[in-house]
Amino acid sequence: MSIRMYDIIEKKKNGEELTRDEIFSMINEYTKGNIPDYQMSAWLMAVCFRGMSDRETFELTEAMALSGDTVDLSAFGSRSVDKHSTGGVGDKTTLIVAPLVAASGGIVAKMSGRGLGHTGGTVDKLESFPSFRTTLSADEFANQVKDHNIAVIGQSADIAPADKKLYALRDVTATVNSIPLIASSIMSKKLAAGTRSIVLDVKYGSGAFMHTKEDAEKLANMMVKIGNYHNRRTAAIISNMDIPLGYAIGNSLEVTEAIDVLNGNGPDDLREVCLTLASLMIERSCNIPHEDARERVENTLKSGKAYEKFCEWIEAQGGDVSYAHDPANFGKAKYSMDVISDTDGYISSCNTEKIGIAAMILGAGRQTAESTIDHRAGIILSKKTYDKVSKGDVIARLYTEKEETLEASRECLLSSLVFSDNRTNKEPLIHKVIS
Amino acid sequence: MSIRMYDIIEKKKNGEELTRDEIFSMINEYTKGNIPDYQMSAWLMAVCFRGMSDRETFELTEAMALSGDTVDLSAFGSRSVDKHSTGGVGDKTTLIVAPLVAASGGIVAKMSGRGLGHTGGTVDKLESFPSFRTTLSADEFANQVKDHNIAVIGQSADIAPADKKLYALRDVTATVNSIPLIASSIMSKKLAAGTRSIVLDVKYGSGAFMHTKEDAEKLANMMVKIGNYHNRRTAAIISNMDIPLGYAIGNSLEVTEAIDVLNGNGPDDLREVCLTLASLMIERSCNIPHEDARERVENTLKSGKAYEKFCEWIEAQGGDVSYAHDPANFGKAKYSMDVISDTDGYISSCNTEKIGIAAMILGAGRQTAESTIDHRAGIILSKKTYDKVSKGDVIARLYTEKEETLEASRECLLSSLVFSDNRTNKEPLIHKVIS
Repeated sequence: MSIRMYDIIEKKKNGEELTRDEIFSMINEYTKGNIPDYQMSAWLMAVCFRGMSDRETFELTEAMALSGDTVDLSAFGSRSVDKHSTGGVGDKTTLIVAPLVAASGGIVAKMSGRGLGHTGGTVDKLESFPSFRTTLSADEFANQVKDHNIAVIGQSADIAPADKKLYALRDVTATVNSIPLIASSIMSKKLAAGTRSIVLDVKYGSGAFMHTKEDAEKLANMMVKIGNYHNRRTAAIISNMDIPLGYAIGNSLEVTEAIDVLNGNGPDDLREVCLTLASLMIERSCNIPHEDARERVENTLKSGKAYEKFCEWIEAQGGDVSYAHDPANFGKAKYSMDVISDTDGYISSCNTEKIGIAAMILGAGRQTAESTIDHRAGIILSKKTYDKVSKGDVIARLYTEKEETLEASRECLLSSLVFSDNRTNKEPLIHKVIS
Repeated sequence: MSIRMYDIIEKKKNGEELTRDEIFSMINEYTKGNIPDYQMSAWLMAVCFRGMSDRETFELTEAMALSGDTVDLSAFGSRSVDKHSTGGVGDKTTLIVAPLVAASGGIVAKMSGRGLGHTGGTVDKLESFPSFRTTLSADEFANQVKDHNIAVIGQSADIAPADKKLYALRDVTATVNSIPLIASSIMSKKLAAGTRSIVLDVKYGSGAFMHTKEDAEKLANMMVKIGNYHNRRTAAIISNMDIPLGYAIGNSLEVTEAIDVLNGNGPDDLREVCLTLASLMIERSCNIPHEDARERVENTLKSGKAYEKFCEWIEAQGGDVSYAHDPANFGKAKYSMDVISDTDGYISSCNTEKIGIAAMILGAGRQTAESTIDHRAGIILSKKTYDKVSKGDVIARLYTEKEETLEASRECLLSSLVFSDNRTNKEPLIHKVIS
């Protein structure tokens, strides 16, 4: 095999297109351990320089999707729909969108990730509910989806194992940063997860994986192309992560804010992103015009049916639903501190990644894959970009179980903010919808 | 360490220059086994795309040269001189140049390689002499150089081990083909071998590592720069390997042809390349003008002193010198066959690599590093490019110990030749001298 892999590396190095057979052989043999990492990493680096054609990217995605288990949701016809976010700070949209869509006629059968670094993960947030089960057997998962139209579990190790192995290698060889590799990695898991429609939230800005609008748009376009090529009705929004979504960062804090939105309150920016994503999902899964889908999800939210579905979902998956009825049950972390402004002016911009790191320091996120999380740790912002701030104002409140982290987190948070004398122009929250 | 290596890969990927410290740390830690191959191969691929600055290349060469043993030839002042060829078909120049230079006032203390694939190795050719020792202890080597001004041995495993490890990795990851990597690989061994002057024969054409004149010139320029930067008086010739050097290909056959040249006979092309290389070596090691050096080596050859030095050398290194006195002692291989032309016309070009492969098939070379060599196997050409050929003429005679290889070798040899009705213009044998 290794002679064949040599030729595949050389072809990519020379900018030639690989055949379908070459791509599938490479992925299959690599998954089986028949191609050494040192050859694969040379190939990955060549891809970083040479890119991949659309066809190559479609086939790489397919080969990775087929490298392990795939979920069969054909029983649900065209109604199954998935949502994916490229990760951000304060992004609790899944907690709102999943029950909103399930209550509006869609089928949400979703696998989700854990957080790492400055971005949070939906599975961690859900585990704020005592006894909530993020691992279900295949039968339990199927039955819950059938009975409740909604289930969200952690990603199984057998979904796209080729991607898992490749991602671990990319992570240590400086080959993460390539649009076709990122797009095929995300979409291979979405294809294997089996939904007929897929809606993507690709974020750009200081707190996102993609730093610029342009790169986010390239990635979104490629993922939409991959999805549509493989007969999944796919759409994407490009949304702003130069500012955290909502005001809460940290697991039970974010769940509480999500419940606020489901109850018709909560921050406008968060609600707007959720309504946009949900309407794109309903448009596809229920096959109705976009305006009708938007009206339907607005009504579902207003009527309280999305909140009811949320409670039904938490209970179905074993969580203590009294926390959904009264989020005060989550309780507060042992230590807290107000972050006070010593400046007069406007917040003209912020480094969202630093805000995520400030929350991680408090115990809300994982520094490494082995770290544990404090579900009540995190940050409630009271001021965000574009807000006026006076000396002595509270900018944010920090929560932690480890008192000694407060000062470092406060410094990190303050260093993320840039002040100016005048209010800056607002960037739109949603830059573009690609469908 | 692996986090540091990540940064080094990323810097190179982004086209940034590495510091001296980064290059030395990387090479030292890789040699010790502290950097995994999958990171190094990603870095090598990034180098294939981004190249290296002159300073980076100088320092990479130095780091690899210092990764193992270095030979101390300071006792010989500026007289020690090495010669290196990038490998060709029928290239027996070292057998002639080494004693010619040693008999003209230079000190030749040389480590040489074995052949692999279609190119031969000096060490294999020398082993045509029964009981010739290609491995000497450091003391034996030093004493022979002191007593006879000449010693040629196989390369020790402790010379530039970093290069050895890197080369093995490049060989399986399609990262061989990069001028700074090739130049630093060759020159690291030359620096470690300790001579004050270095003369390089960089070949281009179908039988050479570099297929075009332009690439050969780039490589030669880079190697001369590296040598001069490290205070070695360095020069290079760019020579034509679109035609084999001389008429003999195969170990004892080439030794016999080399002895012909040392006795004042033999092919013109081979003699001319040898005189050019030897005069560049004497110019540097004896610090005299080029014209004087040329005159001196011509006189040494004419006087028979080069041949005497050759016999002295073979005897000093334990070889049976009666074979040098009468090469008929080598004997002929058990089986032979004439290759007959079925065409009238001129040989307008040939694929020298295929001629090398035809000789390898007969047993003259190694298909893999483990293959053994038949010292009497090979090819004596009677026609080369530019020669007129009539139907029925003998083009070459094949020699082998394995009768079953004759037909495949004959076909390979014939397929290497292109015939035309008119004589094509001669390409110069030596395209350029760089010093």
